[in-house]
Amino acid sequence: MKSDIEIAQESKMQPIVEIARGLGLSEDDIDLYGKYKCKISLDVLKRNYDKKDGKLILVTAINPTPAGEGKSTVTIGLSQALNKIGKKTVAVLREPSLGPVFGIKGGAAGGGYAQVVPMEDINLHFTGDMHAITAANNLLSAAIDNHIHQGNKLKIDSRRILFKRVMDMNDRALRQVIVGLGGKPNGFVREDGFMITVASEIMAILCLSKDLMDLKRRMGDILVAYNIDGEPVYCKDLEVNGAMALLMKDAIKPNLVQTLDNTPAIIHGGPFANIAHGCNSLIATQTALKLSEYVVTEAGFGADLGAEKFFDIKCRYGGLKPNCVIIVATIRALKHHGGVKKDMLNVPNVEALSVGIANLDKQIENVQKFGLPVVVAINKFAHDSEQEIEFIKEFCNNKNIPVSLTEVWGKGAEGGLDLGNKVIDVIENKPSDFKVLYDSNKDIKEKVNTIATEIYGADGVEYTKTALKQIKEIEKLGLDKLPICVAKTQKSLSDNPKLLGKPTGFNITVKEVRVSNGAGFIVVLTGDIMTMPGLPKVPAANKMDIIDDGTIIGLF
Amino acid sequence: MKSDIEIAQESKMQPIVEIARGLGLSEDDIDLYGKYKCKISLDVLKRNYDKKDGKLILVTAINPTPAGEGKSTVTIGLSQALNKIGKKTVAVLREPSLGPVFGIKGGAAGGGYAQVVPMEDINLHFTGDMHAITAANNLLSAAIDNHIHQGNKLKIDSRRILFKRVMDMNDRALRQVIVGLGGKPNGFVREDGFMITVASEIMAILCLSKDLMDLKRRMGDILVAYNIDGEPVYCKDLEVNGAMALLMKDAIKPNLVQTLDNTPAIIHGGPFANIAHGCNSLIATQTALKLSEYVVTEAGFGADLGAEKFFDIKCRYGGLKPNCVIIVATIRALKHHGGVKKDMLNVPNVEALSVGIANLDKQIENVQKFGLPVVVAINKFAHDSEQEIEFIKEFCNNKNIPVSLTEVWGKGAEGGLDLGNKVIDVIENKPSDFKVLYDSNKDIKEKVNTIATEIYGADGVEYTKTALKQIKEIEKLGLDKLPICVAKTQKSLSDNPKLLGKPTGFNITVKEVRVSNGAGFIVVLTGDIMTMPGLPKVPAANKMDIIDDGTIIGLF
Repeated sequence: MKSDIEIAQESKMQPIVEIARGLGLSEDDIDLYGKYKCKISLDVLKRNYDKKDGKLILVTAINPTPAGEGKSTVTIGLSQALNKIGKKTVAVLREPSLGPVFGIKGGAAGGGYAQVVPMEDINLHFTGDMHAITAANNLLSAAIDNHIHQGNKLKIDSRRILFKRVMDMNDRALRQVIVGLGGKPNGFVREDGFMITVASEIMAILCLSKDLMDLKRRMGDILVAYNIDGEPVYCKDLEVNGAMALLMKDAIKPNLVQTLDNTPAIIHGGPFANIAHGCNSLIATQTALKLSEYVVTEAGFGADLGAEKFFDIKCRYGGLKPNCVIIVATIRALKHHGGVKKDMLNVPNVEALSVGIANLDKQIENVQKFGLPVVVAINKFAHDSEQEIEFIKEFCNNKNIPVSLTEVWGKGAEGGLDLGNKVIDVIENKPSDFKVLYDSNKDIKEKVNTIATEIYGADGVEYTKTALKQIKEIEKLGLDKLPICVAKTQKSLSDNPKLLGKPTGFNITVKEVRVSNGAGFIVVLTGDIMTMPGLPKVPAANKMDIIDDGTIIGLF
Repeated sequence: MKSDIEIAQESKMQPIVEIARGLGLSEDDIDLYGKYKCKISLDVLKRNYDKKDGKLILVTAINPTPAGEGKSTVTIGLSQALNKIGKKTVAVLREPSLGPVFGIKGGAAGGGYAQVVPMEDINLHFTGDMHAITAANNLLSAAIDNHIHQGNKLKIDSRRILFKRVMDMNDRALRQVIVGLGGKPNGFVREDGFMITVASEIMAILCLSKDLMDLKRRMGDILVAYNIDGEPVYCKDLEVNGAMALLMKDAIKPNLVQTLDNTPAIIHGGPFANIAHGCNSLIATQTALKLSEYVVTEAGFGADLGAEKFFDIKCRYGGLKPNCVIIVATIRALKHHGGVKKDMLNVPNVEALSVGIANLDKQIENVQKFGLPVVVAINKFAHDSEQEIEFIKEFCNNKNIPVSLTEVWGKGAEGGLDLGNKVIDVIENKPSDFKVLYDSNKDIKEKVNTIATEIYGADGVEYTKTALKQIKEIEKLGLDKLPICVAKTQKSLSDNPKLLGKPTGFNITVKEVRVSNGAGFIVVLTGDIMTMPGLPKVPAANKMDIIDDGTIIGLF
């Protein structure tokens, strides 16, 4: 079997100027990064502002297993299929981070015959967006410590600095550090920590900004610390948000590449799906909606986390109105939700499937609460049995939900034609009536309660003392009228990764509440969220190489 | 008076494909980064390998004052002038680092009417080379800590890890840190520190490598630590140099931009001029030599540091044969060497000049020791008096050294025509007979002694106990047959910044000796060398901004 990089390297890429031309973009609308990548000018969105949007399709999933259910692959494969059917379609995706690339085999460039290319560039530095975010983040961090060192006019309390440094790497040694050692020339000693770049609030801001001025304003609004009187210190108080915007002047422009069969793909931004909202940039999605009939995009993790945030945060801020939602499921994962152990997942087991399908059931219900029509996509694996497939089909038919078996990983566009036709049918015949789940002007607790009970199926929400104190603080600052961004395990509808299927009779426990005031949401943490991954025993990096003729080895 | 960014923004840039075409490069030879920057394929050097080189001109200086004597500006201005005279010329420069850009007003893009453009891009992320180096460096760091965490098969002694993390930022708080806090999941606690990216050994390696395979091999040879038995641990033992090479696959390609008057400029690599050798990449210089009649390049700090390393490290490794050396001096700096205080430097003072000129005298002698002809360039300032100028001219005439008053900052090419004509005259009529100063197969101490006595004018060299122990260790590893890279104050010919002019009767004290085995040199430290700068009280970043129409403010 060919590896992803082998399939990718065999593909016939078109010059990106040709792909851009197909979208109606002239050479003045793009900045080339080599022959097969470009950035799209923000003027394109600006001058098409009044143009009618294309149809917006969100790809989400059931609660995933560690292997993932193939959302990115289905997103890419479906966009390939829709183009083949004759609908002008753009795929819109998140950018991969270097951390996972070098850590455990994975990334966000799809797989098999549903990939975006040039995958080696997309998975490495791409057009430098991650690096720009890293630099902007760390300039602010340096400015904080420098301010304290140079007299601390703002009276920043070095025990209460909220804003952390970042690095685009899996590096557990940097999670908790002490900085400023070595005496007076090196500043004041304090505790600090590094997050991976995608966890930076700057990344979330990039993905929710309307334009560069909005980005600059939002970065200025980041709550970076409290002073010794307990008053907030914002980024703008340090007077570096202008320089940060300068660092982001190119990063804010969406990146255009192509899929294996030359379908345009816009790949831009990739915020964490737990402490942030987990979708590509608003500018990317909006630009795609102006340039094509159909736009296929994705959101991180399962529908309880990713789709909810896509709707309640991204669509709310961007005024987006999705037309159709695809929930990706695998028979393996549904059996896992039905209690089957990892090593038995390849054995047909309709009984377990009939239990685990409750997870899909609840995620369908969740999406419908936003007023949107659903299509279920079964991402087919070799060991799926006919009986199991039939069971899911019948389940969906009974609920009047279109269901499609997709094989885009193995067959590319061809493997997604059925799904494509069903999606078109839904969009043309089933009205969507999108609405957000809650009013962001409500109290924090009320908003959290709505998500927990309506989406997760919880009985209620408990708060630690810390969380309650933090909510009061945020209310005192008047920063509480923002949408909620829940950081929760992706493995379960609940906040307990061990509760599979569709758990009931549980409460959600909120351990910590933070405000991402620049991004514009309140982060509600229900457990220990890892914001800096570590490398595994044998990192993927150890197998990677590049040889004399330029051939790349081991990149998936 | 117009600021540099205002002058730069008024310039009429040519599309970089046109500049490339002027050098005989087709569109297949380049990768565009927007319309005005590109990378040059390594194939260009490969296929021109047997072609005769152009003439190589090095621009160096007297021992500089903190303001700098204008080497980059003269390098750019001279290349503009040579082109105007009709000689096909390329300027070859170092890349700026974000640290100084946001710290104190400065950079490496020249100034006034002798600048490289687009200066805002060159001074910010450019084509991502710095970010690639940062990522490759920090992947190796993460691999070291991960190796220890995952069982430490190599028995790395966490007290003796030599390889540090880097960040492309001025951030004093990161100079000395403790990493790995927080218990078992976060690895083992140890002391570490961050350097600024340009101080990374990877940067030095990039600048001395012949091609990507050479880069990979050299990165593998980095001495990263000792194990608990005192044996060396190299990068390749951690098996990540393949992945690091992958990260560097584009960074190794030289970047092409242009000067204000459309002279081609290749800007690539920028290693520290103290703990590294302070010149742009060998690949950039060699590529330029294949594409033009004249190549003008520069080396960091004064001739005692920059030119010496350029000759003994870069030219030695690359087989380069320079044809002419320009020593840049300012009347202000020579008066400073004559004992004049800062606030009196604008007052004419021939007497002080006649004392301070000993510094220029010694630097001329130093360059001549390498068998090369010298031209002195006086970088003119408004307050320079006729008498002072006459004094220098007479001084040079008496020594039979061509001297030219240059005004490239204020007048561009026009202000460098006289210098250009004198340089052409020297190259056409004065033979150069380049030789390195010492045999790198000699003992470390002998090599250091040669540099100290011959170039610095020292009586001899003293070593601390630590340095002696380190020399023994390097000899024991058999890594001592490498050229020497002295880290020394740039302010004086000696290792004492207070000894101005041409000091005599002093010894150099070597405090520390390290081996940069990947880069291929032995670093000899004569003082406390700062490898991570800090931000000043009011960082340059605080004045920077970008506004709605894209106008950039405060970038110099």
